Amino acid sequence: MLIVKKFGGTSVANKERIYNVANRCVEEYKKGNDVVVVLSAMGKYTDELITMAEDINEKPPKREMDMLFTIGEQMSVSLMAMALDKLGVPAVSLNAFQVSMHTTSVHGNARLKRIDTERIRRELENRKIVVVTGFQGINKYDDYTTLGRGGSDTTAVALAAALHADACEIYTDVDGVYTADPRKVPNARKLKEITYDEMLDLATLGAGVLHNRSVEMAKKYGVPLVVRSSLNNSEGTVVKEEVTVERMLISGVALDTDAVRIAVIGLRDVPGVAFKLFDVLAKKHINVDVILQSIGRAGTKDISFTVDGKDLDDAMAALEEHKIRLGYQELHAERNIAKLSIVGAGMMSNPGVAAKMFESLYNEGVNINMISTSEIRVTVLINEKDGVRAMNAVHDAFNLAD
Amino acid sequence: MLIVKKFGGTSVANKERIYNVANRCVEEYKKGNDVVVVLSAMGKYTDELITMAEDINEKPPKREMDMLFTIGEQMSVSLMAMALDKLGVPAVSLNAFQVSMHTTSVHGNARLKRIDTERIRRELENRKIVVVTGFQGINKYDDYTTLGRGGSDTTAVALAAALHADACEIYTDVDGVYTADPRKVPNARKLKEITYDEMLDLATLGAGVLHNRSVEMAKKYGVPLVVRSSLNNSEGTVVKEEVTVERMLISGVALDTDAVRIAVIGLRDVPGVAFKLFDVLAKKHINVDVILQSIGRAGTKDISFTVDGKDLDDAMAALEEHKIRLGYQELHAERNIAKLSIVGAGMMSNPGVAAKMFESLYNEGVNINMISTSEIRVTVLINEKDGVRAMNAVHDAFNLAD
Repeated sequence: MLIVKKFGGTSVANKERIYNVANRCVEEYKKGNDVVVVLSAMGKYTDELITMAEDINEKPPKREMDMLFTIGEQMSVSLMAMALDKLGVPAVSLNAFQVSMHTTSVHGNARLKRIDTERIRRELENRKIVVVTGFQGINKYDDYTTLGRGGSDTTAVALAAALHADACEIYTDVDGVYTADPRKVPNARKLKEITYDEMLDLATLGAGVLHNRSVEMAKKYGVPLVVRSSLNNSEGTVVKEEVTVERMLISGVALDTDAVRIAVIGLRDVPGVAFKLFDVLAKKHINVDVILQSIGRAGTKDISFTVDGKDLDDAMAALEEHKIRLGYQELHAERNIAKLSIVGAGMMSNPGVAAKMFESLYNEGVNINMISTSEIRVTVLINEKDGVRAMNAVHDAFNLAD
Repeated sequence: MLIVKKFGGTSVANKERIYNVANRCVEEYKKGNDVVVVLSAMGKYTDELITMAEDINEKPPKREMDMLFTIGEQMSVSLMAMALDKLGVPAVSLNAFQVSMHTTSVHGNARLKRIDTERIRRELENRKIVVVTGFQGINKYDDYTTLGRGGSDTTAVALAAALHADACEIYTDVDGVYTADPRKVPNARKLKEITYDEMLDLATLGAGVLHNRSVEMAKKYGVPLVVRSSLNNSEGTVVKEEVTVERMLISGVALDTDAVRIAVIGLRDVPGVAFKLFDVLAKKHINVDVILQSIGRAGTKDISFTVDGKDLDDAMAALEEHKIRLGYQELHAERNIAKLSIVGAGMMSNPGVAAKMFESLYNEGVNINMISTSEIRVTVLINEKDGVRAMNAVHDAFNLAD
């Protein structure tokens, strides 16, 4: 069997944890399996690099930022290979140049395009554990790129797909996917299985366990994912196409407090306005989420939408730059909001799921600002201060507790 | 003009020094010149990486050590590019993969073989300052290698040669080449010019200003070198084929306290013994310096030689491993020795230079253990405790003072 294992920054934050990971890999290796390990930068090292860069230049060029970022994973993988050597198992660390992790050109938010597996296969044939840098790639100019937040998950899934791995295990500091974030909902329950689609909505909606691109890619290539803890041996959660156990109405409740809402007031009510507005944002690579359009005063319309908090400044700047062309009157940003979502493949065949969610929020006295739905998801925008309380209320209403 | 500038670790040790270097480069750039900057890792960062590695594995594999080392220069170059951007000058940082710095395969002590200059030329044509990682290369397996101590000097000279640069400036924490180390010989004098050959002997002999391979390469390709300070604007020392000023009997006195002496006692006195002995060391890539062979007891012979202190353990291990095949009786290592050398192209045409050196040591009561000479150099092995005193005595004897 060929197993890809991905460990995040907290799992390799110090010597003891590095050896904990090394031992788990050796265990797998000694079963006779081929092992590919994908690592993130150690602990908070990426944050340290940001601090270092911003001390030099408060707005560092993104191309150079990626050049700096990539040393974080290179440090992790070389130290891991040294630990494996110490445990008597041959290992080799590889960076994005050595694996040829081809990506798109955008710095800070590139997408994987193609992976050359030749080098990895050769090392596996020589019975080495192959330790690969997550998060990083190279673009067509031979420059380093990074895959954005949680990018190491994507690296692991992409490698599993390219190598036709038998399993892709994502190790985190939680031991699986829960019906809600256990830090916020104390009686949340661990799921044994979840579908790609549900996971995708949970990832997108801020559950934070897996990077959404990694789930998209896993779904696309049918890579079976396991989310489990690096600190214990509990079974974890399997992410796959069809769930075979415990078919429930909804699988989880997610709260995202990173989102901000931008309101564009008094747009001319003519065709093409929405297109122009979102085109401006798309050109800056800003993802827009929940969108609401409403009739404004005197033949105008208002458009509100949410973006990730980190993109707020860029989005506002882009909209202000094009104020005349877009023809709006006012621009507002609202930071104190939260997105609360329920996700479940079961809701497709069960009407009344949304109504039940709204009822529980009404009973809790939580005001709903915006609503957005998909086939397997209902999302509401609420005040940030109501977030955790609302999440628990909805979690209870659907009987998700242990 | 195309200028290659190399700055060592102390020159980029913190934000202020990074900006000091950046400003010097911008100054050059604004004259209309093309600027390529070669950097080492910041301050003592390489030592920190060694500590980090040895905490994980006290004998880390050299291949992984190089993988870890190379992040040091990558950090320097990306931060420098950010500083240049902040100063309003376009810049791009490049690592050994991006420049294609091809080297031999030996980890920790590789030699440069070939540099692809295409990428650098393209960036220069776009009027960017190009910031290149020193010290590192890639071998034919696409693995990182490092060039050994002072390797960034070699990177700079090799780039200057490959790019047909008009000058190669090596910036250090001293402002040129002195007749002796000014920290040990207070009245040492700065040289305006020195020949490659003299510099080569000084570099090899522990003057520590330039890496010997970089001087060899500069001589081979006729690259004019300037050694100068990164902290002031003093003129520095030019290293070139022929010196045109101040033709002196000797150019400098060098003291090397890093060397250790190994004595191999009681070798069989048969042909091929010396070959076998040094072959064992060559296979481990250990450089051997001053060699002395003498008649031992009862049809045996003794061979003594010096190696660099860092190679002592490897050398002793290799010799012990082959004890039976080499057929010696005892092996001794002597750490408390120093190599004192005088260097000067002038001595070729002036007999009596060596005698004058020996006389001054005799007057100072310094005992000589071994002697080795070349056309432009005389080296003696003395006790380490006599080193600085002997150096000053010889410096005075040749009237090298200010």
